[in-house]
Amino acid sequence: MSAFGYELLASDGAARRGRLTTAHGPVETPAFMPVGTAATVKGMTAEMVAETGAQMVLANTYHLMLRPGAERVAKLGGLHKFMDWQGPILTDSGGFQVMSLAELRKITEEGVTFRSHIDGAKVTLTPERSVEIQHQLDATVTMVFDECTPWPVSETDAAASMRLSMRWAERSRAAFVERPGYALFGIVQGSAFRDLREESAKALTNVGFDGYAVGGLAVGEGQAMMFEMLEATVPHLPAGTPHYLMGVGKPADIVGAVARGIDLFDCVLPTRSGRTGQAFTRAGTLNMRNARHAEDGGPLDPECRCPACRGHSRAYLHHLFKADEMLGPILLTAHNLTYYQDLMRDIGDAIEAGTFAELVRAHAPVEAGAAS
Amino acid sequence: MSAFGYELLASDGAARRGRLTTAHGPVETPAFMPVGTAATVKGMTAEMVAETGAQMVLANTYHLMLRPGAERVAKLGGLHKFMDWQGPILTDSGGFQVMSLAELRKITEEGVTFRSHIDGAKVTLTPERSVEIQHQLDATVTMVFDECTPWPVSETDAAASMRLSMRWAERSRAAFVERPGYALFGIVQGSAFRDLREESAKALTNVGFDGYAVGGLAVGEGQAMMFEMLEATVPHLPAGTPHYLMGVGKPADIVGAVARGIDLFDCVLPTRSGRTGQAFTRAGTLNMRNARHAEDGGPLDPECRCPACRGHSRAYLHHLFKADEMLGPILLTAHNLTYYQDLMRDIGDAIEAGTFAELVRAHAPVEAGAAS
Repeated sequence: MSAFGYELLASDGAARRGRLTTAHGPVETPAFMPVGTAATVKGMTAEMVAETGAQMVLANTYHLMLRPGAERVAKLGGLHKFMDWQGPILTDSGGFQVMSLAELRKITEEGVTFRSHIDGAKVTLTPERSVEIQHQLDATVTMVFDECTPWPVSETDAAASMRLSMRWAERSRAAFVERPGYALFGIVQGSAFRDLREESAKALTNVGFDGYAVGGLAVGEGQAMMFEMLEATVPHLPAGTPHYLMGVGKPADIVGAVARGIDLFDCVLPTRSGRTGQAFTRAGTLNMRNARHAEDGGPLDPECRCPACRGHSRAYLHHLFKADEMLGPILLTAHNLTYYQDLMRDIGDAIEAGTFAELVRAHAPVEAGAAS
Repeated sequence: MSAFGYELLASDGAARRGRLTTAHGPVETPAFMPVGTAATVKGMTAEMVAETGAQMVLANTYHLMLRPGAERVAKLGGLHKFMDWQGPILTDSGGFQVMSLAELRKITEEGVTFRSHIDGAKVTLTPERSVEIQHQLDATVTMVFDECTPWPVSETDAAASMRLSMRWAERSRAAFVERPGYALFGIVQGSAFRDLREESAKALTNVGFDGYAVGGLAVGEGQAMMFEMLEATVPHLPAGTPHYLMGVGKPADIVGAVARGIDLFDCVLPTRSGRTGQAFTRAGTLNMRNARHAEDGGPLDPECRCPACRGHSRAYLHHLFKADEMLGPILLTAHNLTYYQDLMRDIGDAIEAGTFAELVRAHAPVEAGAAS
């Protein structure tokens, strides 16, 4: 089994084309991880996820610790076997979901106590417990437990929150059990304050992690501020490790983040949008519920290789959403994930060819329009 | 393009192993057609349906005429292209759904007028219009328009209803546009009255159809009565044509019907059950929501070749249903359809081997238990 590692294959400005080596196989970067919250990418079989080109998926510690429980997943042979995904799996630490989903949470130096959004049970999550759960799940990449700083926030509160997360990162590091090909990633916090981001990046680098994530962004601060924070952060991260921007994002966000040195992404956008009828295409985003698709015999995206575009018309996809048929969300999820994987491939190819700047220009205007 | 036809390959008592030839390819019989009501087998891509082994599917005229409309499907190139199913498609005539779903229906000699269950629009369906719609959909097999006789019913009312359906069958025959490899099937009615069933079978045979269906069963009369009606009907149908039992059924119903000379089946049971967590297995039916599966690392059915059994544990399927994840219905639909296709294959093999009586004995007790 190979050691966990990041190899830089090509670069174009700050944009990097590389490869992760893990206990569960390689990942070509920049890479997008589909979100498999409850040990399933919603509406997709594992085979369908693999067919989109995805090599690595994300699962959520918070959801899985509550249902079916990490001990149960461990007894059943770990998350890879449970969800039939043999490639690498990254688990988040649960910190973000505790803040966004759980009730009655109480944060202390020790950790977070909260009530489960499923059955109201009282649960405590600490850095040590979060890392233990991720070990039980058999996560290829474990994330340190952190506090997701609320937005907006004062600089004083952001600093206190970030420093708590840094102490939790050290405790996560101490609790992590090293295994060949497995990794622990630190998470940079500091909200929208450049000096706090720099302080956080340096604090984590001093502890030493296998990879570094940028957390607490895409929470409402806007794309310009997000890019500014990446510029304040990424140069302070070790170049020989992967850089992961958590929970991002729209295609233009991804392109801009790669331009600032990011290698890994995850986001619910392609899957969640797919379930509601929103399609990402090379000509912009489309709402398949819209009546203008009702008689359109053409494919959703003529350049796309996914099952929706290969076999069906826009009219059929429209019909499926109007009739509330499960196949609508299934096909559009497969399509959107394929779109994202093709985007990542195109980004990597452009970096290798030294033409990444052209790709950045091509994406910016379309997405600015789509986001409005 | 070959002519539509039925070839008898082997028989064992009244049970028949045969092959349909159609404009859209062959169908090995006895065959089970998955139900694709609104031009989609719920939760399945066309590829997944084909992987279960299904060669022919059913779609519903009533649903498709209301949404997206038969004219629209025709403009888009027909149902095969629309739903990306290149094999044969049988469409029902709409009669059954008008009775079970539509509101304010009024039956006259001319046809049925009703209000759409989708938008309340007033719609008229006649034998001529039903056949025209099925032509617009490009159905491989068109069904005559009939009245689905209510249950229970007096013999007088059943006779009047059946004779109306026979007059509609003649009008359907006259309206049908012959094309090579396409077929029109008549439907025997007569409720639970042997003499009416015989009268109906003979009336249809006198008109002449490419295949003969037995309708108006599985409406509450019970398995014993259903089998009795098949015994009163099938001997009066031409041996050189396929015999189709509409809307049936449980595995034991199918086995018993094949023993009485039936070749074709359709039923929502495997798909609908799959969506609610009910699994058909070689060891009986299982409810995957049941807590006893929560820690079971074994496959649903060790002999099954479907994606659910190949890649996952019972514990995972249980988790998906408990978490209301789409993948639960998807995987269990694929499993149940695979179970039904394997059952049909086993039945065909047993008929060829002359061991069908053993298969009948093996199925009867399990299903009697499962149905209780």
